[in-house]
Amino acid sequence: MIIVISGPSGVGKGSILSRLLEEDKSIGYSVSVTTRAKRPFEVEGKSYYFRSEDEFDTMLANNEILEWDVYCGHKYGTPIFALEKHLEEGKDIALDITLPGAQAIKKHFKEEAVTVFLLPPSFQDLEFRIRNRESETEEQIRARLNAARHELMQFGMCDYVIVNDKIENAVCELRKIIHAERRRSFRNKGILQKYDLV
Amino acid sequence: MIIVISGPSGVGKGSILSRLLEEDKSIGYSVSVTTRAKRPFEVEGKSYYFRSEDEFDTMLANNEILEWDVYCGHKYGTPIFALEKHLEEGKDIALDITLPGAQAIKKHFKEEAVTVFLLPPSFQDLEFRIRNRESETEEQIRARLNAARHELMQFGMCDYVIVNDKIENAVCELRKIIHAERRRSFRNKGILQKYDLV
Repeated sequence: MIIVISGPSGVGKGSILSRLLEEDKSIGYSVSVTTRAKRPFEVEGKSYYFRSEDEFDTMLANNEILEWDVYCGHKYGTPIFALEKHLEEGKDIALDITLPGAQAIKKHFKEEAVTVFLLPPSFQDLEFRIRNRESETEEQIRARLNAARHELMQFGMCDYVIVNDKIENAVCELRKIIHAERRRSFRNKGILQKYDLV
Repeated sequence: MIIVISGPSGVGKGSILSRLLEEDKSIGYSVSVTTRAKRPFEVEGKSYYFRSEDEFDTMLANNEILEWDVYCGHKYGTPIFALEKHLEEGKDIALDITLPGAQAIKKHFKEEAVTVFLLPPSFQDLEFRIRNRESETEEQIRARLNAARHELMQFGMCDYVIVNDKIENAVCELRKIIHAERRRSFRNKGILQKYDLV
């Protein structure tokens, strides 16, 4: 299963995924590649693979990126090697990507992919969280807020929607979704093998 | 949301639904109509509406039954008035019906309907449960076991599959599925109304 978390900048996708991955070791995280600058506390190869524009374009040219998108002036992509590593280990994979990215993954993996949109409890709350990062200019902040408005209105593109009012609740909702998705019939095709039906 | 529980006779659909309905008062139970004889401890209008063949046929002729099916020689149907009552009250509805019935409901209600198949932990366990009822002849029991074999192999017709190894676990799985389904984007279309996005 590919678990795709999408939603506006500042909604808390990273924190929720960290919690989820801490609790469920059967899920691997697919680290994205980005051309944006590293923020304080972000870690190369954990938060993102931070690459220059040229490096990103070389990866694209070499078909090393499954899907990519430009968001607030920076490129973000899903490197194929990260997905393949987890799939080989038999793990489910969690991705934190943009809405067009989520659409691309859904198109590629069909029902194997489960897309979840995270909503802030209110737009004011989102603005507060974005401004509180203190790592961006007013212009960059406004661009993120504008992008967020457009993204919120498209939440219906994702299979599920969760409101991140409290991180504990949101993680709990996400876990229930993953748990339920694991009980989908098409993911349990071999379940009758242990039954003596003849 | 219409929650459809299907699965072979004896798998514990009734017990699991009773627990679920006790815990979640936002779900109403749609009592089916049947022409089979009442078992000890079953209650008219709670377990089933027990009707004669003639009465059942009259309901069919009057278009009072949404879907119906013959199972082990008896007719089982979903009366429309029961569904409408709960829908008017704004409740989700749980149904305990046969696989063809589940298919009919899915066709009628599309994604509004969520179908769940209950598997026994083993076929031996199912046989034990059916024989333990002590309310049927050997012939009736064999018919149920044969029907069960065929049904198990068709579990893939349902959206989800749960193994009823322990009733607490199965109810918990079912609750997670219902909880997750409530977070589907198409069930939350109005969620942005409270956001100040302009």
